[in-house]
This record gives sequence, structure tokens and C-alpha cells, in this order.
Amino acid sequence: MTAQGVFITFEGIDGSGKSTQVRLLADHLRASGREVILTREPGGSPGAEEIRRLVLEGDPDKWSAETEILLFTAARRDHLEKTIQPAVDAGQIVICDRFADSTRLYQGITRGDLRGVVDQLHDLMIGREPDLTFIIDMDPGIGLARAKGRNGTEERFEDFGESLQRKMRGGFLELAQEFSDRCVVVDGNRAIEDVAADVAQLADERLP
Amino acid sequence: MTAQGVFITFEGIDGSGKSTQVRLLADHLRASGREVILTREPGGSPGAEEIRRLVLEGDPDKWSAETEILLFTAARRDHLEKTIQPAVDAGQIVICDRFADSTRLYQGITRGDLRGVVDQLHDLMIGREPDLTFIIDMDPGIGLARAKGRNGTEERFEDFGESLQRKMRGGFLELAQEFSDRCVVVDGNRAIEDVAADVAQLADERLP
Ligand SMILES: Nc1ncnc2c1ncn2[C@@H]1O[C@H](COP(=O)(O)OP(=O)(O)O)[C@@H](O)[C@H]1O
Ligand SMILES: Nc1ncnc2c1ncn2[C@@H]1O[C@H](COP(=O)(O)OP(=O)(O)O)[C@@H](O)[C@H]1O
Ligand SMILES: [Mg+2]
Ligand SMILES: [Mg+2]
Repeated sequence: MTAQGVFITFEGIDGSGKSTQVRLLADHLRASGREVILTREPGGSPGAEEIRRLVLEGDPDKWSAETEILLFTAARRDHLEKTIQPAVDAGQIVICDRFADSTRLYQGITRGDLRGVVDQLHDLMIGREPDLTFIIDMDPGIGLARAKGRNGTEERFEDFGESLQRKMRGGFLELAQEFSDRCVVVDGNRAIEDVAADVAQLADERLP
Repeated sequence: MTAQGVFITFEGIDGSGKSTQVRLLADHLRASGREVILTREPGGSPGAEEIRRLVLEGDPDKWSAETEILLFTAARRDHLEKTIQPAVDAGQIVICDRFADSTRLYQGITRGDLRGVVDQLHDLMIGREPDLTFIIDMDPGIGLARAKGRNGTEERFEDFGESLQRKMRGGFLELAQEFSDRCVVVDGNRAIEDVAADVAQLADERLP
């Protein structure tokens, strides 16, 4: 029997360095002999990508917030079943760039009244929290400048500017308190290698 | 302000005469001056049809039962929002060929352990039961013979033969008891016009 693996997620506002730190933590863990797989949301499995295309195609008002939440939960369920859980069961470390906390935050800000529905749906159909979540905290002004200097495609929130980023930062810090058993907040207002050193040390402390 | 409409569904095994009776009840109600719209599941709105195509395309093992339930619930939510509820709100009578009871039954038979999940998901994301449900009860042998003599496409259960149809008949009768406030059982082992006369009379009695 293989030992259980570990499911790690990164959360934080756009430009906070999630994708950068995901890669660096994978390098660090692999260097110490661990088997690591990287994945991301939205998407992360072929079925989840198909559902995502269905949601994003066509008129943006095509689906109500409730139908969208159901479709995204279906995508997450597929991602969990097909990509995350099999790797964890095989004893690997799964590092995922965004997960359910991003949905909680996004819904909390755009449709705060649906946060309860999001949570109940998660408990009923996903039922799995990460073992460890890094929340990269940073000054929204800095994050926005970084994101603009990058040719990324992750533009969902960027258009809304700094005031929204500020709300999201606060929202992530609240989630860190709400799920304090699995969340650690990392100061992202520093050089990449300093952030990475913190993340690596925290992971080493927490990993079995 | 318009008076609220009514949401009526027909349920029953394949070949029991649902589609036939839906049309005849619509004729009857229209003849007495009511505005009636007909719809059906799965499908019933453009978005629901798209989700349905996504589920049915490709490898039948592509989605787990749980992911499938989420996708079908998303389709039902869209059908409810875009087709059923607007018509009911406009004071019309909506007659739907199959609805959530078919999902309850199907899941109860193929994955009985998921019946609780189906119900919780329904309560959370659909939250609407029909005002009146006709369950057409009939001898499975007769239904199967009728269905085979028809060029229909609704073949989901037909392949499984009479023993499954027998289980489904029992399941529908149990649902009729479980939801006895809105369900009426109609004896479908009779001539079309006799069944239709019963349905019309029951509808007239129950409709506001
Ligand atoms: N600590 C940092 N200091 C300066 N630039 C950074 C830092 N972390 C990431 N970057 C740069 O900022 C941009 C956004 O980083 P990225 O990892 O893609 O963030 P996210 O995935 O959170 O949106 C990239 O160009 C990246 O190289
Ligand atoms: N009471 C009945 N007696 C005889 N044939 C019937 C009766 N009701 C329906 N049929 C025929 O049986 C077939 C199946 O009926 P249909 O209304 O499509 O059933 P369902 O929609 O429940 O599968 C059709 O060919 C229909 O004309
Ligand atoms: Mg990124
Ligand atoms: Mg039919």
C-alpha cells in the first residue's frame, strides 16, 4: 500500500505570484525526491475543460449565476475525480493553481447572497478541501502592475481595477481565517526567491 | 397582475402514454380557453439541450454518476428559469413530459445510494416541485409492446426489458405515495380516450 499523497492549493489575487510559486514549490519538492503533479482551475481535466468551454462560449448572460455554479461544480467534480484524487491516492503531491476558495471569493463578491449555496453545493458534491492552502497576500497596486506587464490570459478580474483587487485581497484574508487549519498566508510583496523560500519551508514543515 | 399559472408534469414508464396524454390534455385545456405551453425533459430550453449534448456525446463512461447529476441539475435549472417559470409567472399552464421524478427514479434504480444526494441537490438548486403530477401506471408488458411498435427515440430503458420496467413501475408508485399531495396515479391500461377523459377531469378539479 502506498502512503496517501497531499493536495496543496495556491490562492491569491491576480499577479500575486501563484503560478510562479506553484512551479518553484514543485521544483523544490521534486529535488527532495517527491513525485509532484501540477494542475489548475478552471479546468484541470479534459471533461472540466469541455464544461468550461460550454460556460464561456456565446452570450455572457446565457447562464444564470446558479446554473453557472452548477456547471463549475460539475467541472470541479470531474477535475477532482480524474486528476487530483487518483494522484493523491497514488501517493503523489498535487499542487493546484486556484481551487474552491477562488469560487467562494468570486461568488462572495459578485453574488454575496449565493455564498451559502456555494458552500452547501461544495459540501454535498465535492466534499474535499485541500490539505494545505497557500494564500499569497500582496498589495493590489503591485499585483496589478505585475499582471499588466505580463502577456497572460487570466484577465477575469484585471479589468475591474484596484478597488476590486482590494476587496479580493480582504476576501482571501477572511478565507484564511475561516479555514485557518489548512490555510497559511504568505507575504507576496517580496522577491520571488524570498517568497519561494517561505513556501518551501512551510511545505516541508507541514508535509508528512 | 396576472394570476399565477400552473406547472403540470407527466411521469410513467416508457410507452405508458405520457407524450400522448400531454398533447390531449393541452388540447382539452386550450379548448376551455387556457393558455398552455408544452415542454419536456431532458432538454426544454436551448441551454439545457446544449448541456444534454455534452453529457451524451462521446464515451458513456466519460462522466461519473455524480458529475452527470450535477450536469443534469444545471440543465434542469436552465429549463426552469428560461422556459417553465416565465410561463407560470405569465399565468400560463405548463405541461412537461417528465421532470425531477424521472431523475429520482432513475437514480434510485441505477445508483440507489445517490438518491439522498439527488434530493438535496434538487432542494438546493431547483426547489420547485410541480403543482400537479400525473403518474400513468401500466402493465410493463403492454408498455414495452407499445414502445416497440413506435418509431420513438426514447430508448434509454427499453433495452433493459421487462424486469427493469417492472421495477420502474413500482418506483413510480412509491414516488406517488411519497409526494401524494401533488401526484395522482392514472390507470394507463385502457383506451387512449378513456385515460384522457380521466386526466382532463382530474385537471379540471385541481386547477384554480
Ligand atoms: N515576488 C515577485 N516579485 C516580482 N514579480 C513577480 C513576483 N512573483 C511573480 N512575479 C511576476 O509577476 C507576474 C505575475 O505572476 P504570476 O505567478 O503569473 O501570478 P498569478 O499566477 O498569481 O497571477 C509574472 O510576470 C511573474 O514573473
Ligand atoms: N392507452 C393507450 N392504448 C394504446 N396505445 C397507446 C395508449 N397510449 C399511448 N399509446 C401508443 O403507445 C405508444 C407510446 O405512447 P407514448 O405516448 O409515446 O408513451 P410515452 O411517452 O410514455 O413513452 C404510441 O405509439 C402511442 O400511440
Ligand atoms: Mg496564474
Ligand atoms: Mg414520450
